[in-house]
Parts: sequence; structure tokens; C-alpha cells
Amino acid sequence: MKQYTIAILGATGAVGTQMLQCLDEQEIPVGELRLLASARSAGKTVEFRGQTVTIQEARPEAFEGCDFVLGAADDAIAKELLPEAVKAGAVVVDNSHAFRMDPDVPLVVPEINGADVAWHKGIIANPNCATIIGLVPTWPLHQLAGVTRMVVSTYQAASGAGAPGMQELEAQMAALGRGEELPEPRAFAAQLVSNLIPQIGGFKEEGYTSEEMKLQNEGRKIMHLPELRVNCTCVRVPVLRSHSESITLEFERDITLEEAREALAAAPGVKLVDDREAEDAHDRFPMPIDTSDQDLIWVGRVRRDISNPEPNRGITFWCCGDQIRKGAATNAVQILRLLIG
Amino acid sequence: MKQYTIAILGATGAVGTQMLQCLDEQEIPVGELRLLASARSAGKTVEFRGQTVTIQEARPEAFEGCDFVLGAADDAIAKELLPEAVKAGAVVVDNSHAFRMDPDVPLVVPEINGADVAWHKGIIANPNCATIIGLVPTWPLHQLAGVTRMVVSTYQAASGAGAPGMQELEAQMAALGRGEELPEPRAFAAQLVSNLIPQIGGFKEEGYTSEEMKLQNEGRKIMHLPELRVNCTCVRVPVLRSHSESITLEFERDITLEEAREALAAAPGVKLVDDREAEDAHDRFPMPIDTSDQDLIWVGRVRRDISNPEPNRGITFWCCGDQIRKGAATNAVQILRLLIG
Repeated sequence: MKQYTIAILGATGAVGTQMLQCLDEQEIPVGELRLLASARSAGKTVEFRGQTVTIQEARPEAFEGCDFVLGAADDAIAKELLPEAVKAGAVVVDNSHAFRMDPDVPLVVPEINGADVAWHKGIIANPNCATIIGLVPTWPLHQLAGVTRMVVSTYQAASGAGAPGMQELEAQMAALGRGEELPEPRAFAAQLVSNLIPQIGGFKEEGYTSEEMKLQNEGRKIMHLPELRVNCTCVRVPVLRSHSESITLEFERDITLEEAREALAAAPGVKLVDDREAEDAHDRFPMPIDTSDQDLIWVGRVRRDISNPEPNRGITFWCCGDQIRKGAATNAVQILRLLIG
Repeated sequence: MKQYTIAILGATGAVGTQMLQCLDEQEIPVGELRLLASARSAGKTVEFRGQTVTIQEARPEAFEGCDFVLGAADDAIAKELLPEAVKAGAVVVDNSHAFRMDPDVPLVVPEINGADVAWHKGIIANPNCATIIGLVPTWPLHQLAGVTRMVVSTYQAASGAGAPGMQELEAQMAALGRGEELPEPRAFAAQLVSNLIPQIGGFKEEGYTSEEMKLQNEGRKIMHLPELRVNCTCVRVPVLRSHSESITLEFERDITLEEAREALAAAPGVKLVDDREAEDAHDRFPMPIDTSDQDLIWVGRVRRDISNPEPNRGITFWCCGDQIRKGAATNAVQILRLLIG
């Protein structure tokens, strides 16, 4: 089997570290592995499939001879370095926001628009985490009845702010647990433990945040629905690494609850957990503690939208998915898997 | 000034204890105070305005001579004992669910339908906490443009399950902070710390929970809107005592964002905290840590609903309010204040 030279840019962060694990889990045939990070991390070593890999400083020269580059760095570094990887002949799958809305760059969730990888020009973008987690279960319902409108409230985990966000929440929980004064917030704008922060990203058009607009803008591009209307409210919650979303959909055509449930139960990437009779809460509905460190989007609380003036045109559900895995690393490596075939 | 004999039924719980404090803060002219609880608590003493009050066992005889009874007990105790209070000649303001939908019982949020106290027949009901917190800011917008539909996702605090719920979350945070195994959940169906539980109450019509249906059923009665359609998703979050809600409203008539903001800024019981330019996150939007142990509903993130097909018929906002105070005790004592005049 052909072996590929693969680089991870930003290999030491929460997403980069998870990408490494996903390469192994998804059985990607890795020949040479290059782990690229800031000069600060260069020289450290990481184990991969029984080999010790030394982290290198991320510089343009590091991409020479690469077949694929997985991007897990921030927007600025992605913009600076990834075009160099393309020039060096590599195909890039990038998790940053830098290229997502570029009309020359496919934005891909394999369960939805895997075929879009075909028209890439060197870069394929990985969508925003909340976008992926909300769209994976929306897609099978769209295929049934044509989604026209989404009203979404998110419950987003600390991991969305990377390893520093998770460490900050853990430190706050520990301080609270020991009855000590909470450390000053740095990763977030305010204390997160026992609190909610209803702003993720900067304010953009009409008072929506950048994170809130991603679901509409990226959703339109991924689902090929330029007219899709999305009202999103993004809220940071004191949960470590699974995002949850409360989603209300409106459709062009009638859709019954039974059809919706059947489509969700059969959809790739989805696990339906929606047993109202179950004794154990873990079987009754999805919860973040159950969906952490696995790859599926769990969907439950599926019901008719009783507020929709047209009785069979609305469905409401709740979903949870691991922010670092399917929200980022897993999806990126699934795109790589599509490219390799 | 006339002094009243007032009893609190369920005086030792989270809401009952808060009612006592609210009686003092709202300067209710209390002559004799009777604190009623289970036999277990009888004999304990509580301080009120410099006097020591001994807790009595809640029995029908305890209501003799009472002018008013504040109910802070559960549904079963309310149903058993409060009709005895009415028979004894007292007027009852009850926080339980027992009488809320009874057509002979006004269900009152003073900022909205204070005038409804006039037709009581001995019992006035205090609405559900999430209902009060969501409706106080919805009401001024309804007055402007006529609300027809609400899509609501809640972020509900542990205090909604009373003192045992708060103690359970605190014990879980402490165990996590000390790196110990979490105690078995009792107040909630699963671990709440670093988790979300998307079910509050039992499952009712069409898969909505009892808590979710309250917003529609109680909202219709309080706002005198029998056709109001509400789609609510209620979620328990690891926050101690403030509920938050993400609310999308649809209207009969056009409403501009400016009109909506002006109405909210002027509305009784509401504090508008919505300054996108503010340096400090605490001035930018409402958060549960800032709204705990005070009486107003804080509203922010007010914006046009960009998903509504009619551009000026939708408003979206975020609000937070103290669950024990305005969600329960404060509202009940405000009703008592209306009765006393």
C-alpha cells in the first residue's frame, strides 16, 4: 500500500494532538510523519505507532516532499504557512477559519458533501466545530424535506478555546472545590465554572457573533443551500469537551416525526439516543459526559415543533458531539481518508 | 398601619427561606409570623426582624387567624393543606404547580397581569420559575407588536431542584476539585458538574417535558394569549442559582430593534445589559454569576431574528434571572404586596 508523507501544523495543541490519534485510528498509511509547532516546542518528542517523532519548528521548508498537511494552527499561522505547503505540492486539510469561505476552497463534512473534495485547488477547509456538530444530524432531515430555516442555541464546551480553555475550567473547578479564590480568567472573558458566557467570537453583522454567523455561512456552503436562514445563539458552558445544541428546523415539505426518527437512526455519523421510557438517563437522551472522546453525533429529544404554524413542517432536537474529535480532528482526518481513497 | 398574620408553608426550603427575606425587603407589615414545615423541622428557630420564631409542624390548625399564607411546599402538600388555609379565611399565594392551571385561580406575574389578583377565590398561583424569567422581558415586546410564537432554549440552574439540587452540584464540584470520585447523583438523573441534562420534569404531550409545556400553558394564561405557540427545550446546567434563556419571538406586527431595545430598557422588572462595546464582559451581556441573589431579569444580546422570513417580525435575546428570587419567592411576595396595597 502506498505510504504518505504527512505533516501536522500545530501538532502540540488539543486538535493537533487528537489528529495524531485519529491518523492511527482511521488507519491512514503514514510513511513519514512531520510534527510542526512553534520554536518553543521544537525538539520535544511524541510517540506514533511505536516510533519516536521529534517536533520541528513550523517553517516553509518543512513542507517539502509532503503529500498532505493537516492544519491545526490559528488563522494567522494558517494564512502565512499553508500556501507554502500548497506551493511545495502538498494537499492541505485546514481546521482554521482562514480559508473556509474562499470560493476556491471546498468546505467539507464527509457525511454531507464529501464529493466536494474533488474540486480542491490544494486546500480543503474543515468547518467550525459547532457547524459540524449541528449539520451532521440536520443533513438527513434536509434530504427528506428541504430545510429552509434553523433556530439554534448552543451549549459549547471549554475545549472550543483549545487546551488553555480546558485547563482554565479545570483550574476553576479545582479552586472552587477546595474553597480557594478562583484564578483570574484568561482564556475566557469571565469565570466559566458555575456560569455561562453568551458570547463566542467578536460581534459581527446585526449583533450576531462571528461564531453565530458561521453556522449560517458555512452551513450554506456545505449543504449547497445559498438561501438557508439561520438564527444562532452561541453560549459557552462549564463542560470540558462536548458541544451540545438545541436545534429547531423548518422545512419546505411535510415531514413526520416517524420519518425524521428513521432518517436519523439510519444516518452516517449519527447515533440516535432517544428512549423516553429508559430507566437510565444515559439511554434516554444524549449528554456531554457520554459523548466525549468518541466520533459520533448523538441525537435525542426528537419531536415535532409544536410552535410551527404549519403542523408538519417543523422538527426540534438536541444533539451532542465531541468538540475536539468530530468537531475538528476526526472530521479533518475523514477528509484526508476521502482524498487517499 | 395594619399588621398581618402571615404563614409560610414549607418555610425551611430554599424558596421558603428566601420568602422570609423578601417579606422583610419588600417591607410587608407582618404582625404574627408562622413558619410551617415538616414535623422534622418543628421546634427549630429562625430570626425575623429581631424576633425569634419557632418553626411549627404544618397542620390545618396552624392557619387559624392567618390573613395570608405563602406556599413553598411541593404539589402534594399544597393540595392537601392549602384548601384548609382558604377555609380558615386566609388568602394563599402558592408557588407549587398544584393550582396554576385551575380556572378559578389567577396565575400572576405582577409586571404583566397584576390586575388578575382581583378575581381570586382564596388562592393565587405563582408561575413556574422558567416561565416568569422568560415572560418578564417578553411582555414589553408583546405590548409593542403582539407575540405569536416563542422558540426557547433554557439553561436552568441546580436551584430549580431546591436546596438538595444546589447541595448536590456543590458536592460534585468539590469532589471534582479534590480529584475524588463523584458522589452518586440523587437530586438529578445524572452527574451535573461538567455536564448538561436535557430533561426537566416527566415526558408529556408529543415528547415535551412538563417543564417545557409550562412555558406555553402558563404563558397563555398569564399573558391572556390562548393561541400563543411555544416550543421550549429545558436543559439543566451546572450553575447554582440563576436560570438563563435563549428566546426567539415572532410578532403579528412589525417591530424594529430600536423599539425593542427602548421597550426593554423601560420595562419594569427588567435590566438591559447589552453593550457590545463594553471592555468588561459583565457590562456586555447578562451572566448567571451576576444575576444571582437580586430581583431583576437581565436582558442582553438583543437582535433582529435574521432567520425570520419576514424581516421585521422577529426578535432574539438572552436573559438571566435568579431562580429562587424572581423565579419564586420575590414574585410571590410581590403578589402579596399587590393584595395588601
